[in-house]
Amino acid sequence: MEAPIALYFDFVSPYAYLALPRAERLAASCGRSLDLRPVLLGVTVLRVMGLKPVPQTPLKGDYARADIERLAKLHGVPFRHHGLPEVNSVPALRAFLWIKRRDSAAAHEFARRVFAQLWAQGRDISAPEQLADAIAAAGQDPETVIAACGEPEARDALRTAVDDAIARGVFGVPFFVADGESFWGGDRLPMLEHWLTHHRWEADPV
Amino acid sequence: MEAPIALYFDFVSPYAYLALPRAERLAASCGRSLDLRPVLLGVTVLRVMGLKPVPQTPLKGDYARADIERLAKLHGVPFRHHGLPEVNSVPALRAFLWIKRRDSAAAHEFARRVFAQLWAQGRDISAPEQLADAIAAAGQDPETVIAACGEPEARDALRTAVDDAIARGVFGVPFFVADGESFWGGDRLPMLEHWLTHHRWEADPV
Repeated sequence: MEAPIALYFDFVSPYAYLALPRAERLAASCGRSLDLRPVLLGVTVLRVMGLKPVPQTPLKGDYARADIERLAKLHGVPFRHHGLPEVNSVPALRAFLWIKRRDSAAAHEFARRVFAQLWAQGRDISAPEQLADAIAAAGQDPETVIAACGEPEARDALRTAVDDAIARGVFGVPFFVADGESFWGGDRLPMLEHWLTHHRWEADPV
Repeated sequence: MEAPIALYFDFVSPYAYLALPRAERLAASCGRSLDLRPVLLGVTVLRVMGLKPVPQTPLKGDYARADIERLAKLHGVPFRHHGLPEVNSVPALRAFLWIKRRDSAAAHEFARRVFAQLWAQGRDISAPEQLADAIAAAGQDPETVIAACGEPEARDALRTAVDDAIARGVFGVPFFVADGESFWGGDRLPMLEHWLTHHRWEADPV
């Protein structure tokens, strides 16, 4: 088994949600594992890049709202607009990292559940208590994990993860890093697959 | 022959340059024509959306610089970074529209040449005189077209084209509109092909 494919994500991104199952299938077909790594779009997009959230960006916001629905249909992924004015992914990302440090497979399952809660069921994930079902579904104890989210270990882990992602050039999500190449967007999964297969960009000489 | 595929472009975008030959092949394979339509990123991205140019956007600028090179290799398109601090596409887009009104095939060829001049040869296109070779290669008279670029007809035509693009929700380039659906980015060509083939997003019932 070669080095894992890093998939940087933030639960607030429907594009990250829609890309996850496709990334899982791609990794499996290439005999690679998928390493989920949190990043905060509120830090990268808003603070570092000085842009605005996509839903509040003129023209692009409307495009994305319609685009997400058709992408969900195209890829057969359940989807509904949650209609929440704002979603805070900090508690869920802290919980993710806390679980990952102890059991990375459980953390992956937790991420799947949180994504589905927000983007398939339309239920908020902003408050730690709202994560109880996803934590339990990942085989962890909700009370323990929710309490841990407020502790320095979880806070520091997320801060370090975000700093590390930015240092690696991650800005939007989903963002993939594999064998030294970076790929922004679920649309780039075919290009990532090409890279994993050929490890070169030039076409083979005829 | 069904309605053409609209391809909104701005010469300043290397992604539009790289997507053009692929879009031409896709249109040909679907028996559709390609209708090139100018838009100004300086208006959509900067003024309407309130963002900054990609090259000046932290993180994304560095990503795009490396990304364009590997995409050019992957798709076998000649490419070099022009190194110009700024490129003004207004004269070239005015010339494009002036030619298009008289001979749309010539305008298409002119666009190909201007794109190649900037992104394959690394030569500036900002001044009307710098367009002479591309105009001649498209079978038009450089003196006539260059003079026309400064006239009200050409100015008004570009202003109207940009307003029209914005009214249709166009923001970045390349941007495709076909049979009622919009697609932003060359990465979406496979999705555009799916749409042209199926005219639905849901998978066929098993």
